[in-house]
Amino acid sequence: MKKISVKLGNRSYPILIGSGLIKRLTPHLLKAAPPSRSIGLTNLPVYRLYKNRLPDMPWIVLPDGERTKNLATVEKIYHRLVSLKADRQTTLVVVGGGVVGDIGGFVAATYLRGIPFVQVPTTLLAQVDSSVGGKTGVDLKSGKNLIGAFYQPRVVLIDTDFLKTLPDREYLCGLSEVVKYGIIQDERFFDFLEKNVSRLLEKDKSVLARVISRSCEIKAEVVSRDEREGGLRVILNYGHTLGHAIETLSGYRAIHHGEAVSCGMVFSARLSWKRGLCAKTTVDRIQTLLVRLGLPTDCPRYPRRDYARVMSVDKKSRGGKIRFIAVRRIGQVIPIDLTVDQITGYL
Amino acid sequence: MKKISVKLGNRSYPILIGSGLIKRLTPHLLKAAPPSRSIGLTNLPVYRLYKNRLPDMPWIVLPDGERTKNLATVEKIYHRLVSLKADRQTTLVVVGGGVVGDIGGFVAATYLRGIPFVQVPTTLLAQVDSSVGGKTGVDLKSGKNLIGAFYQPRVVLIDTDFLKTLPDREYLCGLSEVVKYGIIQDERFFDFLEKNVSRLLEKDKSVLARVISRSCEIKAEVVSRDEREGGLRVILNYGHTLGHAIETLSGYRAIHHGEAVSCGMVFSARLSWKRGLCAKTTVDRIQTLLVRLGLPTDCPRYPRRDYARVMSVDKKSRGGKIRFIAVRRIGQVIPIDLTVDQITGYL
Repeated sequence: MKKISVKLGNRSYPILIGSGLIKRLTPHLLKAAPPSRSIGLTNLPVYRLYKNRLPDMPWIVLPDGERTKNLATVEKIYHRLVSLKADRQTTLVVVGGGVVGDIGGFVAATYLRGIPFVQVPTTLLAQVDSSVGGKTGVDLKSGKNLIGAFYQPRVVLIDTDFLKTLPDREYLCGLSEVVKYGIIQDERFFDFLEKNVSRLLEKDKSVLARVISRSCEIKAEVVSRDEREGGLRVILNYGHTLGHAIETLSGYRAIHHGEAVSCGMVFSARLSWKRGLCAKTTVDRIQTLLVRLGLPTDCPRYPRRDYARVMSVDKKSRGGKIRFIAVRRIGQVIPIDLTVDQITGYL
Repeated sequence: MKKISVKLGNRSYPILIGSGLIKRLTPHLLKAAPPSRSIGLTNLPVYRLYKNRLPDMPWIVLPDGERTKNLATVEKIYHRLVSLKADRQTTLVVVGGGVVGDIGGFVAATYLRGIPFVQVPTTLLAQVDSSVGGKTGVDLKSGKNLIGAFYQPRVVLIDTDFLKTLPDREYLCGLSEVVKYGIIQDERFFDFLEKNVSRLLEKDKSVLARVISRSCEIKAEVVSRDEREGGLRVILNYGHTLGHAIETLSGYRAIHHGEAVSCGMVFSARLSWKRGLCAKTTVDRIQTLLVRLGLPTDCPRYPRRDYARVMSVDKKSRGGKIRFIAVRRIGQVIPIDLTVDQITGYL
């Protein structure tokens, strides 16, 4: 088992990564949060598959899907917590993918003005991305993650065994974010991914352990240095400005997050090349790796004005300009301020 | 104009207190938050009275009353902010009493995971209590302030002139919290209040300035030493365990917050005396001052089991026990852990 520390002063916490943690979930949770004072939150697919291995405590089970990630769901959970007599010493144990994690984290951040919570991410995307960093939130009709809070878990438990039951499409979505870490911060890691495409696609245990650990390390390092998105953390948004727009325009259904980000990363690389910020070979390497992994790289052909409309409510916009993450080379990205029209001009 | 600092590291902020700040509201706000990047939030009674003196910016106007303090109102404000294209550089300027302040603070804490906000409290209660300390939140049907976040404003502007248009009953509610500060922390301040009852009831300017400043000072000091209610801050809850129960049982209408707290403070003093923690004279002094100020001191006669039921979801409950604030003497209170039955036994 590997341990990574997210250093945030008195809100620091460990990420524990390994195979077979599920079996020892109860004792692990016991250490972090006594089941007598814990309430679990998960979704139906996870609950069906892992029911017998989950600790004996009350479980709140959500329906599946991004469409549940709204304030109505949050309010239902609040009411369940009240009826279960949850108080400030109650720990919320959140087992599931990014959607459950985001909702659960937001509930933990706001119920009684904050109760402790433990993240147990079950999808690759949640393991390498959303479970690390303390971003929690829900969607509004007008945009993704518009409501939320920065709130840190007490511990993150990552079991690679959960990935065995993960649908292939969701697995690939996670790999999209893994590739992102190579591009934004670590060329050697990107090389490693290029050399291990087939083992990645086979969910090879040892490759997975390395990939998840390194991804969490990079994210933890960026987050430790910039908890609330004042500066460095913005690089994690690489591929996401367009990615979020694609998700919004597709109604969060036809196209999944990792797929949208894959398109967004190639778009950003191409924009960077056309603006003279990186070489054409950089664009090609990025696109080739994503294509070999089976990810889409062409942006859906929604009208430019629709892209512009949804981008203008992007959280990263600053007085009309969007802080867009451009590529210099594999392992290095930079934020540049662009208007919405400048961005959509490259579509 | 008096300035008090709330010291919270990089989230420290000033409280500015004075008469006539309304007239200079625009320049004051200008310094804290440019109107070009600000959106105002207020309620209908305040908007009607002060419309012409409020800075020229978009205003979101809520209906009046505690019953608007719910997630439905919060969601409506989110949608207005999106349609006004509010981004992370937008400051929310919150002008109103405790209800508007609590809602506005919660919206600021959670919109785009947090935007800057300025508090301009217009009621005495908000000026001496809810605007200081970073507590924000809304009610659920099952209890008051069950949802919320700790989130600090950039600046608090307190103009005592707002009190001229404040209904008498609301003014007295504020005095209830003022009396609380004397009891929990400062006997000399309590003496001062006893000696100035008639000037307080006449809203004498100089007495008011002193009373508001000293109240904010005490609250700011307690909050600075304990932002997230780990320890000391719990003393601010004096009179509130029963107070919140009374408000919940009255449906937040028949009895106002300050009135409920007044009853709760006398109840707590009597409980303390009966448990041998303070002298009978202490109970009498507290009750006498509150009665002279025109505040109610007898708890409404709801059934004990109803009190018990609503108290059991109190945020301050710890594994079945409630951290109840008892009185030792004027100027000193202590937390004691009591079961709900122990508390209601003194009703």
